[in-house]
Amino acid sequence: KVHSKGFRERIFLSRPILQEDSELSVDCPLVFHALHLCFAGCLAFVKRQLSRVGDDWYFLFIFGILMALISFGMDFTVSKLLKAHRHLYEKLDGSSVLQYLCWTIYPIALTTFSTGFSQSISSQSGGSGIPELKTILTGVLLEEYLMIKNFSAKVVGMTCTLAAGSTLFLGKVGPFVHVSSIIATYLGRIRTTVTGDYENKNKQYEMLVAAAAVGVASCFGAPISGVLFSVEVMSSHFAIRNYWRGFFAATCGAFMFRLLAVFNSEQETITALFKTKFRVDFPFDLPETMIFIALGILCGTLSCFYLSCQRWVLGYTKRNLVIVKLMATKKAVYSGLVALLMASITFPSSLGQFMPSRLTMKELLSSLFDHRPWNVLSQNLSLSNRTEVDPDNLWIEWCHPTFTIFGTLLFFLVMKFWMMILVTTMPMPAGYFMPVLIYGAAIGRLVGEVVAYIFPNGIRSEGVLNPIIPGGYALAGAAAFSGAVTHTLSTALLVFELTGQMAHFLPVLLAVLVANAIAQKFQPSFYDGTIIVKKLPYLPKIRSSNTGVTVEEFMNTSLVCLAKVSSYTDILQVINSSSHSLYPVVESTGNFIYNFRELPFSKSPFSKLLKVDENLWGKCHIDPVTFQLSPSTLLHQTHKLFDLLGLQHMFVTSAGKVVGFVTRNEVRDKYKIIRQRIQNPSGGSREYVT
Amino acid sequence: KVHSKGFRERIFLSRPILQEDSELSVDCPLVFHALHLCFAGCLAFVKRQLSRVGDDWYFLFIFGILMALISFGMDFTVSKLLKAHRHLYEKLDGSSVLQYLCWTIYPIALTTFSTGFSQSISSQSGGSGIPELKTILTGVLLEEYLMIKNFSAKVVGMTCTLAAGSTLFLGKVGPFVHVSSIIATYLGRIRTTVTGDYENKNKQYEMLVAAAAVGVASCFGAPISGVLFSVEVMSSHFAIRNYWRGFFAATCGAFMFRLLAVFNSEQETITALFKTKFRVDFPFDLPETMIFIALGILCGTLSCFYLSCQRWVLGYTKRNLVIVKLMATKKAVYSGLVALLMASITFPSSLGQFMPSRLTMKELLSSLFDHRPWNVLSQNLSLSNRTEVDPDNLWIEWCHPTFTIFGTLLFFLVMKFWMMILVTTMPMPAGYFMPVLIYGAAIGRLVGEVVAYIFPNGIRSEGVLNPIIPGGYALAGAAAFSGAVTHTLSTALLVFELTGQMAHFLPVLLAVLVANAIAQKFQPSFYDGTIIVKKLPYLPKIRSSNTGVTVEEFMNTSLVCLAKVSSYTDILQVINSSSHSLYPVVESTGNFIYNFRELPFSKSPFSKLLKVDENLWGKCHIDPVTFQLSPSTLLHQTHKLFDLLGLQHMFVTSAGKVVGFVTRNEVRDKYKIIRQRIQNPSGGSREYVT
Repeated sequence: KVHSKGFRERIFLSRPILQEDSELSVDCPLVFHALHLCFAGCLAFVKRQLSRVGDDWYFLFIFGILMALISFGMDFTVSKLLKAHRHLYEKLDGSSVLQYLCWTIYPIALTTFSTGFSQSISSQSGGSGIPELKTILTGVLLEEYLMIKNFSAKVVGMTCTLAAGSTLFLGKVGPFVHVSSIIATYLGRIRTTVTGDYENKNKQYEMLVAAAAVGVASCFGAPISGVLFSVEVMSSHFAIRNYWRGFFAATCGAFMFRLLAVFNSEQETITALFKTKFRVDFPFDLPETMIFIALGILCGTLSCFYLSCQRWVLGYTKRNLVIVKLMATKKAVYSGLVALLMASITFPSSLGQFMPSRLTMKELLSSLFDHRPWNVLSQNLSLSNRTEVDPDNLWIEWCHPTFTIFGTLLFFLVMKFWMMILVTTMPMPAGYFMPVLIYGAAIGRLVGEVVAYIFPNGIRSEGVLNPIIPGGYALAGAAAFSGAVTHTLSTALLVFELTGQMAHFLPVLLAVLVANAIAQKFQPSFYDGTIIVKKLPYLPKIRSSNTGVTVEEFMNTSLVCLAKVSSYTDILQVINSSSHSLYPVVESTGNFIYNFRELPFSKSPFSKLLKVDENLWGKCHIDPVTFQLSPSTLLHQTHKLFDLLGLQHMFVTSAGKVVGFVTRNEVRDKYKIIRQRIQNPSGGSREYVT
Repeated sequence: KVHSKGFRERIFLSRPILQEDSELSVDCPLVFHALHLCFAGCLAFVKRQLSRVGDDWYFLFIFGILMALISFGMDFTVSKLLKAHRHLYEKLDGSSVLQYLCWTIYPIALTTFSTGFSQSISSQSGGSGIPELKTILTGVLLEEYLMIKNFSAKVVGMTCTLAAGSTLFLGKVGPFVHVSSIIATYLGRIRTTVTGDYENKNKQYEMLVAAAAVGVASCFGAPISGVLFSVEVMSSHFAIRNYWRGFFAATCGAFMFRLLAVFNSEQETITALFKTKFRVDFPFDLPETMIFIALGILCGTLSCFYLSCQRWVLGYTKRNLVIVKLMATKKAVYSGLVALLMASITFPSSLGQFMPSRLTMKELLSSLFDHRPWNVLSQNLSLSNRTEVDPDNLWIEWCHPTFTIFGTLLFFLVMKFWMMILVTTMPMPAGYFMPVLIYGAAIGRLVGEVVAYIFPNGIRSEGVLNPIIPGGYALAGAAAFSGAVTHTLSTALLVFELTGQMAHFLPVLLAVLVANAIAQKFQPSFYDGTIIVKKLPYLPKIRSSNTGVTVEEFMNTSLVCLAKVSSYTDILQVINSSSHSLYPVVESTGNFIYNFRELPFSKSPFSKLLKVDENLWGKCHIDPVTFQLSPSTLLHQTHKLFDLLGLQHMFVTSAGKVVGFVTRNEVRDKYKIIRQRIQNPSGGSREYVT
């Protein structure tokens, strides 16, 4: 009996068909055996196919899903916190003092906590994170930046920042991209442990590129523009291979993100985040194209003004002694003070009555993309009862009995301009893309409403009336302004993915192109500006390639070589007396006139080996030469090699002898000199070159 | 009097303000002078700014506009020719014989002319042109392919091909991309003459990348997907710099293309090419996502089947002696015979009655993207009077009294499958993207109609009824099938730009990803397949990078060196006795053991110089060494260098001595061997490896 039981269990284990009756297995063992074989064959085939897919795809899938979960979790928490605040504020209706306290203390508490918490964990968790990631993706190692401890700092800090709502006017994208790359690095490490593939640095890079795409995609549920935005912002060159990876992970992330919204009963089915209802058959009239281009010029000009002010303010906070002292010791106090100022201004009974300060960031964007012309609507509106925000008519918040919607839009633009700049100096995790998007949408809305006011029946008011859609201008403004600030074109696509409509695609693209042309001509992008102010090790963009400068002019000749025949004490002496991390190994030492053979190995594994074994060359890791520069290689060629191949260090050889080496620093320094010479032949230096 | 007149004229010329009265100029010369100065200052500023923009942008602008004009001109001619044919055919109603003759002779005449004309000008003008361009963009020079004479061959040939309508089932994209790159090359040459910048090969490459984008954009009026499609199809790496150029030119092209449609009164304003009216608020229900994914699997599987059949048939026409003989001498006869077969099958009184053979290619796609469920509509339809095509109800053409729409869709799919493959063998300019797009849309429509038939009230038929939109499936099918055939993801974006709606973006993306995963796993893309069959010099894709093969194993060691000290007769002898085009110049000759110094120069300028001057080294062009390989460089690193830097040739040095060289051929051959070893350890070879 015991034996038979064991036997039956064995059948059960090896056969995936459940057996209710033991007689069956005795009656038709052949059928079962055939079924078993067939099933096992199928399983093996599927398994073989799946194992051939490559483990990265599984990791990318898991990664996408995971980021969507984190993003949704954050959004969920933030929306609950915002609702609680709104509820409390509305309950206190009648007592202005209590309402003021509620309005101000809430964001102050949140920002102070956000700053304190994130700074206590890591000093690098403030700000957006995209400039640092951009630097990392060029191959520079920024230590600690992708460590897992930053994850909690960023996620908790960012949730608090976002929960402060539109008072602070901050977003989510930047820090979320940072969080995404932390998770990607961490997952990469897990994979390395699982697969044992330790050497492959390329995979790490690929995961980071995908991480940026997933970050954007699971913030907005916009996979295509997520991939494109990450590509445009992050690198100067990219491989189609990475683009597919990014696409896959971003689609998984975006799909899961929107799916969760359905499961949470926020939406009935999967749709766009800011659904619009623009007319499809006649979205805009032909002469309006000119107005869209003018809007592009306006957005481009304003973005230049914004970028230069922002960089000046960021630099000022690093120069002003009072702020520097405050920042050094009491970052949280600084954040709290800024939050107090912001909250006092936006308080609905003070200046806040002239702007829609009760709306959250998402509601602001939704209201601006509304397809109805506000000016017409506001004339039939009685503004008596406004204690609660009407979710179906968010635009009512933009109305003011005496100011009119033009006044509120203009006031919003003027006030938010400096407020948006001021908050970028706060040392807590915060994104700066969403504010820029909303600001651009407000510019566009204002232009659109003015056009709709001037031409109430459409521009060519003959035959069928086709009134102006101001929402279309808001769309173009959002894309153009955010595109100009970040120097990207994919924002055009982003607004379509956000709204689910593409009817305006040609005018929006034109506006984005014009705005970008102006911004790229006169200012570095928001991220490049931050890189400049923070002095991160990043290679500047090439403008002209015909400088005629050769490697010989800027290579570093302070070489220390190791001879292949050198003894163990010689090597120890060389390594202890110099600070290099890489040494060329040459045929024999002395004045570098000997033949160059193989290079380089890093200091750390070598010094370990020294203590164990004297037979160095057999055991320690000497990389073969793959890329050598010649003294007559041009500067822009060198730049291209560093850029394309993600290298850190190259040796220069002449007739087989090592004569020097070049790192990114040499290239960057040379570029700076050339650029200064081009821009200011008199010798002065402009701020963003330093 | 003469003097005074001359004076006034001078004022007029140098001053842009028109003067009616000569007294004015005497009365207030100061004001005019000030105005003049001010205006001149403004003009100078604008001029300075414009001249700083860089001449490429002007060229890109002109290029975009020009391509749009050509594209529109072609479309206009084609539509007139198609209308004429339809009109003639409808006039002959009553006489079947005459109708048959009209139906068949028209396409036969057009294809015969198209083949004859284009082949008489250039033997390379047949087919799509994208595979050849892809090869050119990797840095390989295909002579004559971008010569201006191909332009007329392609444009005239393509117009005739397209005028044959849906009988032949051919498209426009491929040849138009080729035309676009011919124009780009030609414009580049004009610019070189204007600016005198002869050396810059990079610019040429940049223009070619932009050309591909503009080609797609001005075919479909879809700039964003045009850029992405060109990037995905054309290269394995790309620079963001080129992406901006492509974007700019593509937007100009697409805008102009749609603007011309408005000027031609085809449309009231600028809108999408195939405007759809899908429901925005509830485009699809959540469970439908599974059906979309299943559709992706179906499209992926069918695309594999299509690709392998297509490659087999293309190979067969090169093996079958009868066809080879016919093709060698009478290409036009072959085209005519194929056209006769196609026309006989699609004749509306024969088998053509079971498919919508009277619709043009554009009408086919429009009808498939219809938002209404055909099955419901067709039940309320009397099919008595069908002599003329109803432009507002194109879907009626898909109805058949006994066959039902399911029957016609299935019949269409079965028949067009082999017809679509057969026409790719015709030696005339023709695009294969549009047919694939329509075929995919038909697959999607069939699936959509079946789903709508099974769930007439929507999948979750509770509460508000949300019926299935079969047009959404047609959208997904078109994107997935065309994406799988071309191995691109941007087709997802293309269908949105074509229809102007993005409501289905997540399910469409999922379908495209799934279809692509299957197709990329089992088959090379349509373009790669053609490259393989045509044996073009193209580097294959890398699958695994860990082969461990080093340069030493596959480098070419048949070196011929020139010594720096060698005499004029020595050099002449070396050059005459060998067939290389590049020679390394070394310190001194003999067994390659001497130090390597500088390389390479091409044969032609050198041989010219020889006759003039003995002082060679001072005068002839010797390029400095910039990239050297080491014998221990890995195969995949070498591949990456060729791929990223667009190189043709690299020398291998060891300890400063030249030991061999590597070209693309060596890399390709090595890859072939490795791939064959991996795929067929037994030693056999699969067709597409050769």
